[in-house]
This record gives sequence, structure tokens and C-alpha cells, in this order.
Amino acid sequence: MLQVVKRLFVGRPLATTEQEHQRIPKKIALAVFSSDAISSTAYATEEILFVTAAAAGSSLILGLDTLIPIAIAVAFLLAIVSFSYRQTIFSYPNGGGSYVVSRENLGEGPSMVAGASLLVDYILTVAVSISAGVAAIISIPAFHGLEDHRVALGLVLILVITLANLRGIKESGTLFSFPTYLYIFMLAGLILYGLFQVFFGDDPGTVPLDDPGWEHAATGGSLSLFLVLKGFSSGAVALTGVEAISNGVPAFRRPESKNAANTLVIMAVILGTLFFGVSVLASHLHPYPSEEQTVIAQMGLLVFGEGGIFFVLQVATALILTLAANTAYADFPRLSSIIAKDGYLPRQLTNRGDRLVFSNGVVFLAAAAGALLIAFGGVTNALIPLYAVGVFTSFTLSQSGMVRHHQKEREPGWKRSALINGVGAVATFVVLIIVAVTKFSSGAWVPIIVIPFIIAIFKGIHRHYSRIEKSLYVEPGFRPRRMNHTVIVLVGRVHRGVLDALAYAKSINPTHLIAVSVVTDEEEQARIEDQWREFDLDVELETVYSPYRELTRPVLGFVGELEDRYDNEIITVLIPEFVVSHWWQHVLHNQSALILKGRLLFRKGIVVTSVPYHTE
Amino acid sequence: MLQVVKRLFVGRPLATTEQEHQRIPKKIALAVFSSDAISSTAYATEEILFVTAAAAGSSLILGLDTLIPIAIAVAFLLAIVSFSYRQTIFSYPNGGGSYVVSRENLGEGPSMVAGASLLVDYILTVAVSISAGVAAIISIPAFHGLEDHRVALGLVLILVITLANLRGIKESGTLFSFPTYLYIFMLAGLILYGLFQVFFGDDPGTVPLDDPGWEHAATGGSLSLFLVLKGFSSGAVALTGVEAISNGVPAFRRPESKNAANTLVIMAVILGTLFFGVSVLASHLHPYPSEEQTVIAQMGLLVFGEGGIFFVLQVATALILTLAANTAYADFPRLSSIIAKDGYLPRQLTNRGDRLVFSNGVVFLAAAAGALLIAFGGVTNALIPLYAVGVFTSFTLSQSGMVRHHQKEREPGWKRSALINGVGAVATFVVLIIVAVTKFSSGAWVPIIVIPFIIAIFKGIHRHYSRIEKSLYVEPGFRPRRMNHTVIVLVGRVHRGVLDALAYAKSINPTHLIAVSVVTDEEEQARIEDQWREFDLDVELETVYSPYRELTRPVLGFVGELEDRYDNEIITVLIPEFVVSHWWQHVLHNQSALILKGRLLFRKGIVVTSVPYHTE
Repeated sequence: MLQVVKRLFVGRPLATTEQEHQRIPKKIALAVFSSDAISSTAYATEEILFVTAAAAGSSLILGLDTLIPIAIAVAFLLAIVSFSYRQTIFSYPNGGGSYVVSRENLGEGPSMVAGASLLVDYILTVAVSISAGVAAIISIPAFHGLEDHRVALGLVLILVITLANLRGIKESGTLFSFPTYLYIFMLAGLILYGLFQVFFGDDPGTVPLDDPGWEHAATGGSLSLFLVLKGFSSGAVALTGVEAISNGVPAFRRPESKNAANTLVIMAVILGTLFFGVSVLASHLHPYPSEEQTVIAQMGLLVFGEGGIFFVLQVATALILTLAANTAYADFPRLSSIIAKDGYLPRQLTNRGDRLVFSNGVVFLAAAAGALLIAFGGVTNALIPLYAVGVFTSFTLSQSGMVRHHQKEREPGWKRSALINGVGAVATFVVLIIVAVTKFSSGAWVPIIVIPFIIAIFKGIHRHYSRIEKSLYVEPGFRPRRMNHTVIVLVGRVHRGVLDALAYAKSINPTHLIAVSVVTDEEEQARIEDQWREFDLDVELETVYSPYRELTRPVLGFVGELEDRYDNEIITVLIPEFVVSHWWQHVLHNQSALILKGRLLFRKGIVVTSVPYHTE
Repeated sequence: MLQVVKRLFVGRPLATTEQEHQRIPKKIALAVFSSDAISSTAYATEEILFVTAAAAGSSLILGLDTLIPIAIAVAFLLAIVSFSYRQTIFSYPNGGGSYVVSRENLGEGPSMVAGASLLVDYILTVAVSISAGVAAIISIPAFHGLEDHRVALGLVLILVITLANLRGIKESGTLFSFPTYLYIFMLAGLILYGLFQVFFGDDPGTVPLDDPGWEHAATGGSLSLFLVLKGFSSGAVALTGVEAISNGVPAFRRPESKNAANTLVIMAVILGTLFFGVSVLASHLHPYPSEEQTVIAQMGLLVFGEGGIFFVLQVATALILTLAANTAYADFPRLSSIIAKDGYLPRQLTNRGDRLVFSNGVVFLAAAAGALLIAFGGVTNALIPLYAVGVFTSFTLSQSGMVRHHQKEREPGWKRSALINGVGAVATFVVLIIVAVTKFSSGAWVPIIVIPFIIAIFKGIHRHYSRIEKSLYVEPGFRPRRMNHTVIVLVGRVHRGVLDALAYAKSINPTHLIAVSVVTDEEEQARIEDQWREFDLDVELETVYSPYRELTRPVLGFVGELEDRYDNEIITVLIPEFVVSHWWQHVLHNQSALILKGRLLFRKGIVVTSVPYHTE
């Protein structure tokens, strides 16, 4: 039954040999891996305004004035980071995420910082993108009533992406490439047509200020450097997702590195252009930051009017943001499987599910992002500072690692490469410090607690696996010593199942064989002893008295006694078990055998054998 | 941890030999077994008024006029039923509930009707008593604000009784006898002092009518016979619980029958007197039926004023009603254990817990009553008709059974006894018909669906146990035929645990021994085969290919293949298992072994053996 539902939503199982087919062409890869980065244009400008306009004594103009300089700085940073990652793609064609690069070049500590930062970031990507997508839908005046259902809408979106990803990445790619291109087209249209109106057509004027908290008039004065940097920190979220392609190189068609590098450049150009364009348009149209209506929606309404084009713009925005979450679905499971293979996360994360997807990682990601969405009531802004710290931490580590890589490899032109990555490392480190300082009190302190906590978990898991590995190790040629073998058969009363179990016990060649019956009073003891005589069984019967009418403790006590009685023994506890035909029939039978088996498993030198008796 | 909490609330385990000490003296037995019957005086009068006053065109007087005749009829019925049950106690000193009497004298069908009716009634007793108890508390003007928390208050009370009963019946008896006597004393005081005021003191007048729905003035006309009978049906709930003592004879001190019979007579006298007294007082004080304030509370306020005495009256009412629920806690688990012993309910209900209480029955009763309380929002009236049908069904069956009993036994004076029980059977049957007809549309139709449903469950369970019994049956002297024995050992890679498992497998004398490795690709296959050669293991290795990367299906397939390959085989599947020191470490290891074990258990001829490997 469950299987049928699973097949319906997830599809038929795929064999390991079908793996190659899951690689994707550039056009689709651009959609899959770039939606995160490109979609950040939907909220990055707004995030800047939330800081600068709010800080400038509720005066929009002062905030809008700083928009263009900040946009230029962000675009410049984007260029540096993209160039740096281009090199990573060629050096690490098997997927050179920040984690892998740090591990190979900087050692265990930095790699764990990178791994923890990235895992947190992927979860935040899903939460932030989904809630921004919901915000785009709510911004459509016709859908205003949905505002109270932010969280529910977000959870539905997460469910849809999760199912799509459990089906496998290629199918998601095909499904997802159209909306990415639609968004790029619509946003470019907004910028171009908007600027055309401003400079050549009827001046569209400025966004009407519904919110009484904002004033158009400049109050005089200027923004402090701290506030400008804080605004820049907010704008830097536009860079999130730039590293996605370098993590996902193996998903590209051959030649993987070249295809991935080209895709990265195309993506950076599109992202930079759109982000800068939105900022320029905003500086003319004067949108204001608001939780009710997004900045893009405000400008869309002004430029296109409340018609079909505006509607398509908003839907495309919501769709690409949903797909942005999908980037994390491509990378989180992949990264966690790499970390798990290194022994820092549970091994189960390395299992590909029956659709060749790392299903456990997908499900974990969905659960974590859903929890965040619920905890923050579906409003993203509070998460952005957490997000930026992790992103720039992993950028810095990745670029530093690349510098070390070039120094070690000394491949042709390594000095130039090291210089590029060095510039990248310094630039992203500076941004990291800016973000951490300017946003410290708004939540940038959270990663300082969360990331070490995750690292502690990594280390605990690694310690556990190492210890087990050590205890399992043997030299070839090792032979366990031969031990005596005591078999005890648990019996309640004599019936067919018990006779079968006794026959089995005799056949496995025990040194000692004892049938054990747990009785609660003398009457019960007499009954089993009478039956034993009646059936004339040639197996020694011992009764164990259970004053409190339970099974587990007396049996454990008896086993302890046997361990004292015989030396150098393995004890097999043989449990004859009813097997009923339907699962619900189990409620009609005592489940004490199950509890007993669980307890016995934890004693050394005990083997537990279930001899089922099938009752048709 | 859980154990500590359990001990704190439930107490230390009691040995089977301590059973005798749980018998209770008469004074306590009266409190334990009579609280149900006596406490019904707290709501029976009100239930009559709900029918008669409401039906009489909102005229109270007309309703009040019928109260005394109905009360006389109910008291008369009580005398008949008590006399009948007195005989049952002597004929069935081991507990002659309606179920046992019907089973022994009327056969399987009637006994199942009786059993189902009684089980339902015990659940209803808890739900009705608890919500009436809550109503008594809410009736205190100072506590009026609690009205919205009916359900929560009720659930807390259920929890308290449940814990008390899990500790064991004697302790509950001691704890519970004081409030029963307090209620008897307070209600008697209300009746006597109220009637004294009416006849000799300052006339207390009548209850002021807050509720505009009722008028004092008679509207003329008279009640139809149907309505009087319907009122009588409501009043008949006062008889619920009369049978409790006959079910609980074995809990009395020796001589059980005599002690129980005397207790029954005392109880009937107290109950009849109080019920009749309340009705007489009501016909003078003119209380009105209301969900906000009980009839007893209205009269208590009028007679005692809003002081300490009134407060004690209400608290005593609430307490005895809570204890009434306790009657069901004494009888439901006992009856369900009897039915389970006959094979009509799950066997687990026959297990005494470690406090010598049938804990499973107690917990089931609490859950069912709690669910009803929630479903009905804590207001009882709707449940009363359901209640009455079950009660009089079991009365009728019990008395009819007793008539047959006397006919069979022909003990000295059997004709007189048969006559008494015959009168009882006819009387209760007539009442059953009256209740069923007059209350059909108010809910008496529900038992007509519920009771056959429960009987169907009884029969299904019985069929299941019989089938198993048959399949387990063997003649003494039966010996299972000797079979060949194939052992397969599941291996992933070669490590210490696997070597231990192989050594164990060799020691148990298999006809064939095969090590099986499930691999997902050729690389994995090569790896295990290399290891096998390296360790020079003298056990045949077969690899099974798992294209979809799962364990269970390929292993099941391989087992199927083996069954074809060898004839007449038992196959032991030996699973080397990691055992980690802490339960949470299990999440770090694959749980596929658990799933595999579950699936293998359902195949015939398969024995599953866990060879644990302890990793310290």
C-alpha cells in the first residue's frame, strides 16, 4: 500500500547503471544551479532598503541614494567571486565545493567549518527562497487575502519540490528550466521598459506611499559609513548560490569542467546585470521596503499597471524562488553524502535511494527548512544575516584553499591563478568581517553558536565510527577461538512450535541443551513439568520463578547463572515465535519476545535465534 | 528513567503471593463497590426533571408532580433487582457477573450480549460519573468560571483515578471510603434539614428561577403516559451499579458471599432512601433542570445558604462521583480478564501487572472514557439513554440465567429462588423495553449498533485463537521429522564480527554453509571477493546483485533460490549485528537488519539468528 503511494509520487526504482543518464545539459544546468543566485535579485534590493531607508530616519530618498553605489560594490564583488570559482571548477572536476577544497588544502578543522556553514546555508536557502516566493504571490493585490496563510503556502511549496527531487534531478531540471528563463525575461523587461518610460516615455512617477511610516522628503543629513556597510552586507546576499555550480560539476555533461565554467560566467553576467538594473530602476521609482508588497511588485505595478503582464512577473518571481530552493535540493544531499563518506555524518546519507537520489538528505533538508519556516512565521528578513555569514565563511575558506592548492600543484600559470584566488579570498574575508560586525546584533551571532555545535556533532560521529572500525579490525589469518555452546529454548507450554524448536536446537550441535520455562506460581510449574513427562521429552527442563509475572528479567538472570555455571561459553537463546498471517493479529499475542530479544542483544556472548512457527 | 516515574506513581512491584492481602473489609467494600449506585442520586432526579418538566410545556410544577410516583416505582424496582442479585452472590461466590451467569446458564450468544453490554456500561459509568462530578464543582457559585474547562477538569480526574487504580485496589479503597460516607452524611443532612424547614421551621420557599425558559405556574393539562414512562426510564439510571457487588465477590474478605450479600442490602437501603428523599425534597423546593447548576446544588443553596456546609455538600458530591468511576475501575479490568480468559478478548488483558492489577484493562478503560468525555464536551445527559439500555440488558440476562441455574441445580428452596429471579428478570425486561421504546430517538438506538459490533470482535478474536490452538496441537509422542539445514551468513565486508559469525555458523553443524554478500556493482563484488581470498576463508561465498541498492528483496530472492536448490531444508539466516553501547548511536548505523529480520520471520522454514558483535 505504502509502496503504491511511493511509486505514484516518486516513480519506478532506477538501477545503479542508469546513473549516467541523470547528467544534464548546460541549458538545464543553468536553470537548476543558477536559480538560487539569480532569484536573489527578487529580494536583495529590498534588503538593502530595509537597512538604509529605515536607518535614514524613515526617509526613503537618503536610502535610495546609497542604492547605486552599493549595487556597484556588490557587482564588483560578484565578478571577483565568479572568477575565483571558475578556477575551482577546473581544479576540482569532481565537484569542488568549499568543503572538498578546504579538506584537501587546509585540513580537517577548516573543512568542517566549511561543511557546517554550507549545510546551514542550504537549509536557509530553502527557507529564505520559499518565503520570498510566497511574498511575491501575496504582493499581487488580488491575492492579498492569502497573507495570513504564508506558512501553509510555504510548506506546500516545500512539499512539491521535495517530491520532485525524490523523483530525481534530471526530471526536475526539465520541469524547472522554463520558469527560470521566464523570470530573467520578465525582470529584464521590467527594467528596460521602466527605464524607457523614465527617460523617453511618459514619466511613470514614483510608487505611491501607502505606508505612513515612510516619507519621500529627504530629512537632510547623510548615512554613516557603518550604515552604508550594513546596507552592503544586506546586498551581498545577492551572491548566495554562486558556488552552487562548482559543487555540482559532476552533474554536467562531458566535458564537465568546461561546461560548468561557461555556465558560471553566463550566470554571473545575468545576475550582475539584473541586480544592477533593479537598483537603477529603484532609484528612479522610489519603492519602499515593506512586508506586505515586495519592491519588485511595487515597481511592476507602476510600470506595467495591474494587468496580465504584472501578474506574469509575480508568478515568474514566485516560481524562480521556488526553484532557487531546488538548488539546495541538488547540493545539500550531495554535500552531506560526501561528509558522511568521510565519516562525519551518519552513513545512511551516502545511500542513493531507489531513484538514484540521496533520499535521506532530501528528506532531512525538507524537514529542517519546513521547521525554520514555521518558527519564523514565513517572514525571511530575520534569517538573512545568518545566511550571509555562512555564505562568506565558505567563500573565504574555499578561495584560501585554492591558493594553497595552486602553491602545492604548481601547474602552468599557477601564480596568476593563485593571485586571482588570493584576491577572492581577501575580498570575501573582508565582506565576512563587514557582515559579522555590522549585522552582529541582528543575528550574525547565531552562526557563532550553531556552527561549532554542528562541528561538535561531526567530531562525535567521527569518533564513534573510528572506534568501531578499530574494534572490528582483524589481520588476515585471524581465527576466533572455538567455544562451548549452550542452547536454551524458552517454552511456555508444550505445543507443535515448541517441538519444532527443540528439534532445531538438538540439530545445531550444542554442548549443553536446556529448556527453560518461566513460571509465576507452583501450579504453572507443575503443569509444564507434567506436560514434559507426558510428551517424554529428552531435553532437560529447568523452571525459573518469576514473582512479578514478567519474562525479561528472570531470563536475563538465568542466562547470568549459566555464564557462571559453564566456562568459555556462547549461549544461544532460542525463542519459538508465533507468526500470524496479518499484522493486526499481533495485538492478540504477547509481544514480550520482542522486548526480550532487544534486551538479550545488549549482553555479550548471547546469540538470539527466532524459530518461527507459522500458524497458516 | 521511565521505570523511576512508574515506581513513583504506581509503587513497588507486588509478588503473586501477596495477592490475598488485596482483599477488602466490608466497610471499605461498601465505599468501593457502592459509590456508583449511591452517587447516581446526584443526577437521577435531575434526569427525570429534564424529561418531565421539559415535556410539560416548560412548566415545572407538572414535572415535579410526577417525581414522587416515579421515585416510588424506581425504589420498588431497586428492591426487586437487589433481591435478585443477592441470590446471585450466593450461587456464584467467585464473581457472578451477568457475563458469567449468562455463559454458564444461557450459552455463548447471551453471554456475549451481556459481556458487551457490561463493558460498554463500565466505560459509560466513568464518563457519566466524571462529568456529573465536574458539574457539581461548577455549580458552586465561586467556581462558575470553570464552566469552560469541563473537559480538562474531567480528564484530570480520570488521570487521578487511573493512577490510584494502577497502584492496586486496596489502597484505593482506604483512600476512597471517607468521601463516600461523607456524601451519604451530607445528602441525608440536606434531605432531613430541608424537610424540617419545610414542615417545622421557616419555610425556605422555592428555588428562584434564573432560567427564563421555565415557569413555575402549571399550564394545566397532564403528562401523557409515554412521557411519564420516559421520565421513569431516566430515573432508572439510579439502579446502575447495583450489580457491581455481585461481580466483585472475590474481592471481599472471607466468607465472601455472606459479606457481599450483606453489603448489597445495606447499599440498596441507603440508595433507595436517599433517592426517594431527594425526590420528596425536590417536590417541595421546586428546583429546575439546568446544565449550569445541578438540582442538588440548587436545593443545597436554598437550604444551607451559600456557606461552608453547602461547599462541603458539593465537594462530597464531586468526590463520590469520582469514586463511582472507580467502581468501573474495579470491574472493567476484572470482567475483561474473564472474557479474555475465555478467548474473546486479547490475552494480554489477563495479565496482572506488577502491582497485581489488570493494568491493561485499567489503561484501556481510562482511554475510552477520556475519549467519550472529549467527544461529548463533558456534558453527560446525551449518554444516559445508552447507559440505561446496557444496564437493563445485562440485568435481564443475569436474572434469566439465574432462573435456569436454579432449575438445573435444584438446591434446597430452589423454587422460591427461581421465583425471585424470575420476577427480577421480568421486571428488568419490562424496564428494558420501556427504556428502548421511550428513549429510542434520544440515543437508545446506539447500543443496537455498538453491541453487535463488539460481539463481532469477540467472535473474530475467538476464531483466531481457536485456529492457532488447532494448528499448535500435537499428540504426545509426536516428533518433528529431521531436516537438512542450510545456514547462510550475511556479510558486507570482512571484519571481526563477520569472522565470529562464520565460526558460530560452522559450529552449528549445517548441511550446507554459504556466505552471502549483497553488492550493488562490480566494484563492490570484486572488493568482497578479494577480501575473501586475502583472509583465506574456507566458507563458500556467493554474491547477490542488488540493482536498486537495497538489502531485503535480494536476500529474500536468494533464499527462494536456495529453497529450490536443496530439498527438505530449514534455512537459518545468520545476521552479524553491531551492538553499540548507547541507544542513540543506532541512528549512525543502518537499520536494514531489523527490516530484513521482520520480513524473513514471515517466510516459512526460515530461522533468523542474530550474532551480535559488541563494539564495547
